[in-house]
Amino acid sequence: MTTSVPPARAVDGGKVYLVGAGPGDPELLTLRALRVLEAAEVCVHDRLIGPGVLECVGAQAERIFVGKMRARHTLDQDAINALLVARARAGLRVVRLKGGDPFLFGRGGEELAALRAAGVPVEIVPGVTAASGCAAAMQIPLTHREHAHSVVFVTGQTKDGLPELDWPSLAKPLVTVVVYMGLAVANEIARRLVAFGRSPATPVAVIENGTLPGERLVVGRLDTIDAQIAAAGIGGPSLLVIGEVAALARSGDDLERRIAGSEAARALDRLLCPGAL
Amino acid sequence: MTTSVPPARAVDGGKVYLVGAGPGDPELLTLRALRVLEAAEVCVHDRLIGPGVLECVGAQAERIFVGKMRARHTLDQDAINALLVARARAGLRVVRLKGGDPFLFGRGGEELAALRAAGVPVEIVPGVTAASGCAAAMQIPLTHREHAHSVVFVTGQTKDGLPELDWPSLAKPLVTVVVYMGLAVANEIARRLVAFGRSPATPVAVIENGTLPGERLVVGRLDTIDAQIAAAGIGGPSLLVIGEVAALARSGDDLERRIAGSEAARALDRLLCPGAL
Repeated sequence: MTTSVPPARAVDGGKVYLVGAGPGDPELLTLRALRVLEAAEVCVHDRLIGPGVLECVGAQAERIFVGKMRARHTLDQDAINALLVARARAGLRVVRLKGGDPFLFGRGGEELAALRAAGVPVEIVPGVTAASGCAAAMQIPLTHREHAHSVVFVTGQTKDGLPELDWPSLAKPLVTVVVYMGLAVANEIARRLVAFGRSPATPVAVIENGTLPGERLVVGRLDTIDAQIAAAGIGGPSLLVIGEVAALARSGDDLERRIAGSEAARALDRLLCPGAL
Repeated sequence: MTTSVPPARAVDGGKVYLVGAGPGDPELLTLRALRVLEAAEVCVHDRLIGPGVLECVGAQAERIFVGKMRARHTLDQDAINALLVARARAGLRVVRLKGGDPFLFGRGGEELAALRAAGVPVEIVPGVTAASGCAAAMQIPLTHREHAHSVVFVTGQTKDGLPELDWPSLAKPLVTVVVYMGLAVANEIARRLVAFGRSPATPVAVIENGTLPGERLVVGRLDTIDAQIAAAGIGGPSLLVIGEVAALARSGDDLERRIAGSEAARALDRLLCPGAL
């Protein structure tokens, strides 16, 4: 059975598409995102977009890297906004490609505001957020009738160090706390949660490069996770899942099977994405 | 430019795939989800899966509706679990198709636990969660450097009425609260948030049938939203977005344009999904 994806007729020029690239694995792009990427005339992307996703961008597209690294932005946000406006005003189909979902810690809101102010049409293409991608890969249910009645997404990366969070609330049992870009502040977050009353034995999962071939999982407790991160040498982009549900993460044996499966999936993607190696 | 999606070689039998169908629009399926749906031999699905997504399920598949409606479950959870285990043990490729993402209020965790206990292999295919899909459709950034430092996802649908939530925390400014399946409890949630100190003028967006052709948006305030829901006759599956960001939702004119675009996208889907009408 073969499915033929039609050309992207509904993708217009003179417009900016804020596109969620999903958590990393190109298989986790949406159909809409793939279509928009294929039809792009300009693609403006960050550091965290993996090569498999970038291979889906049409060969004709101008590619502009505006990669942000902590404390070292290649282009600042105003310059990115101006770039998007200028290219759209030139009548081009402009894709602003962002990891995960554009409206969950992606600064998509700021870009949307700038584009609206400039009168540039915008379409938002949502994506699988890193929390869902990593939770699926590691088989950690983020909510659970018994273990988690609500889930809170916070970012560990702010302009001024640790974010201002409602620590007493996050310290309550049965709340799943997902920290995006949280590796650098994992120790501080763990310390505060315990200080505000969460059990030191609360499970914590750290997922590095989730859904990518080199993905790794470390599961510990609030009072051990910092040492475990160091011992495992975790240093890549990571998501933290804090809460009772983290203990449900799959075992190492399972994990190796999944990684093997993911390689097979990537081989299919090379066929699927035009311009792939 | 035409892309050829290869057959789903990596989809194995004797296994259950917990698949996120995304928010409704079949364009928002992931590539992996589409591949798994096409290769399914059994598809077990709920009420909230739209026709466009179900058309992507291979024609050969046995389709089993286990639709849950509030207080009227067609099959209870134990029976669903037993069904999944039995079909997988028969060597079949079983898809358990769930709206949004399987690990965000989808009871995927309970099914995972049952499948693990039975020794049945499981793959989780994450999806675009309803919050991301509706936020994209209505152009409501869920996080924002100025308006929202964290986002909380809660469910309005529990066994015992209103969920037990940390009201003082949700009542703080600058927190975006997303309520899944929240229509029936919208008034009660708004009342409690105000009682615990959130401003009655806090913006609220109600998105009915988000990402589907009949999608509708109502934007109000905590102290007006109940009357507005009644006046607009909102009664379908709805997501609530409570917080300052809800005021950023696109205007009605924009919305009509988007809905027209979505129709075009659906026409493409009929070509894309085998077996589509």
